[in-house]
Amino acid sequence: MPVRRTHATIAEVARRAGVSQSTVSKAINGTGQLSPETRRRVTQAARELGYQARGLPSTSRGTRTYTVGVLSTDPYGRFTMPILTGAEHALAAGEISMLLCASLGDPIREAHYLRTLVGRRVDGIIVTGASSDARAPVERDLHVPIVYALGASADPRDHSVVPDDRGGARRAIQHLIARGRRSIAVVAGPSRHLANQHRVDTALAAISEAEGVSAASVLYGDWTEAWGRDAAAILLAQFPEVDAVFCTNDQIARGVLDHLREADIDVPGRVGVVGVDNWDVIVDASRPALTSVDLNLHEVGRVAATRLLAAVGGEALPGGIEYVDCHLVARQSS
Amino acid sequence: MPVRRTHATIAEVARRAGVSQSTVSKAINGTGQLSPETRRRVTQAARELGYQARGLPSTSRGTRTYTVGVLSTDPYGRFTMPILTGAEHALAAGEISMLLCASLGDPIREAHYLRTLVGRRVDGIIVTGASSDARAPVERDLHVPIVYALGASADPRDHSVVPDDRGGARRAIQHLIARGRRSIAVVAGPSRHLANQHRVDTALAAISEAEGVSAASVLYGDWTEAWGRDAAAILLAQFPEVDAVFCTNDQIARGVLDHLREADIDVPGRVGVVGVDNWDVIVDASRPALTSVDLNLHEVGRVAATRLLAAVGGEALPGGIEYVDCHLVARQSS
Repeated sequence: MPVRRTHATIAEVARRAGVSQSTVSKAINGTGQLSPETRRRVTQAARELGYQARGLPSTSRGTRTYTVGVLSTDPYGRFTMPILTGAEHALAAGEISMLLCASLGDPIREAHYLRTLVGRRVDGIIVTGASSDARAPVERDLHVPIVYALGASADPRDHSVVPDDRGGARRAIQHLIARGRRSIAVVAGPSRHLANQHRVDTALAAISEAEGVSAASVLYGDWTEAWGRDAAAILLAQFPEVDAVFCTNDQIARGVLDHLREADIDVPGRVGVVGVDNWDVIVDASRPALTSVDLNLHEVGRVAATRLLAAVGGEALPGGIEYVDCHLVARQSS
Repeated sequence: MPVRRTHATIAEVARRAGVSQSTVSKAINGTGQLSPETRRRVTQAARELGYQARGLPSTSRGTRTYTVGVLSTDPYGRFTMPILTGAEHALAAGEISMLLCASLGDPIREAHYLRTLVGRRVDGIIVTGASSDARAPVERDLHVPIVYALGASADPRDHSVVPDDRGGARRAIQHLIARGRRSIAVVAGPSRHLANQHRVDTALAAISEAEGVSAASVLYGDWTEAWGRDAAAILLAQFPEVDAVFCTNDQIARGVLDHLREADIDVPGRVGVVGVDNWDVIVDASRPALTSVDLNLHEVGRVAATRLLAAVGGEALPGGIEYVDCHLVARQSS
């Protein structure tokens, strides 16, 4: 007796039928332009593998639990919070509950939770992390759709939803240039962080593309206010021509502002400062209030959940990285 | 045919048998000192009500889903985060998953989520909020154990686990006195907040109990750094003898520190400052680093989950408010 696999994936059906996953999806859902022969090949492969299409009406499917698993390396961190809120808004609209698991970056714990979620027959899983650094994909062949949010999967076959850090940095530089700044310094966090490097590289590119504007300096440190104060001291001593500082997070920017104020440098009169994160705790307490790039993490969570629900409904996830726009919130510091 | 209620609560059994809930629990679990007559009365009441004791071995119980619902008015807020982490640690030890619902303070949404959780047959529910202000109890007779964390239920029959704000404030004052401070000002948040008032009242009591120490002033404002700066200016102008400031949160304390530094007042040489929350973002960035009361919210979450699991296992929840100790983390500001 052949082993009947009731949990074959769309990928396995696609491989067996010799077609793409999106073709499988179209064939099974009866959508799109397909030749009868292709449709027949897919249907036969699906039958042989015992594939249960998630896109079938719920009466015949009968397996949806209306529960989505959220696996997070840092579920209670401040970057994850808005992502979960956004995801919940999208899921609540479909009356879907969220099972939350904290892997805390421990691979054994993560594997345990994945088994738990699959054992509880969740309809899909959102994997999210503490930073935008790419992460190793979770175990494959779990037979449920998975979407990564914030930290992209290192495997391009996975679908990841992340903030467009590069676009955010570009907006910050364009804003400073539009306000008449001509000598821009970049004060950054640790160079090993992907988001930090995206912000720095794009800022420098945007500066070099603008006529009559130059990059005075790029200083790397850590994500703290203390580093922002130190960096501002270096800038004042060695690059007195600087009239704008783009900082790759809000805490650095607040440190820069504190040092400039204590050195009697007028902000925004002589120097404009912009941060990243638009974190209310920092931007509102800064003197003056800090202009900042908002990463739209709520939207990242909402889009990730929306993609997941579409996949649960039978649509193929395209794979690759989907970027969510950032926006700039202008305040008194620039 | 009588209606058979399979979801009677321990409270209903207790009422019918004319005994306390803990007596019901002892009778059903075969523990404690009970007369045979009492035990018989409880057993009969339980049978008549169709009560399914949750404490029975799982084979006969068969109803546990190993899922706990968490209903939060502010699930992604910074006070809830450590509570959820603590709860998760306790629940993960029992391989219990957490279903997270965000009521966002909306009663209709809350009622909807409660129905959802009960419909999903969670073993129990943790209700948590954004502040320590008491909250209206959720719908009664849900037939699952409920524990409140951080924000106590206004109904004393409910079991609530909250930080011991009063004890924390007392520790702060004792610390300042032990460091030789004699004229202590209190800079507080809004007077309408319960936690704030507990901190102020206890601080004043602790000051008045100490010989040779006096309260210079109590200033009420909001929870912001800007208020801390303003309050420090008032203190310097009107109460120059002040040698210590107890602030009812860290953001206020950081504002006080900033103003004192900018007014060239030596901290901790001339004035000592203590905050509440021990929030790393604030205490580490403060100049000097801020001494602060830690509310042990992680422990609040852990204890709440532990009580809930005991109740799921058949133990009666005692009801009332259970306080979790706070501790003081001394840094350079005091």
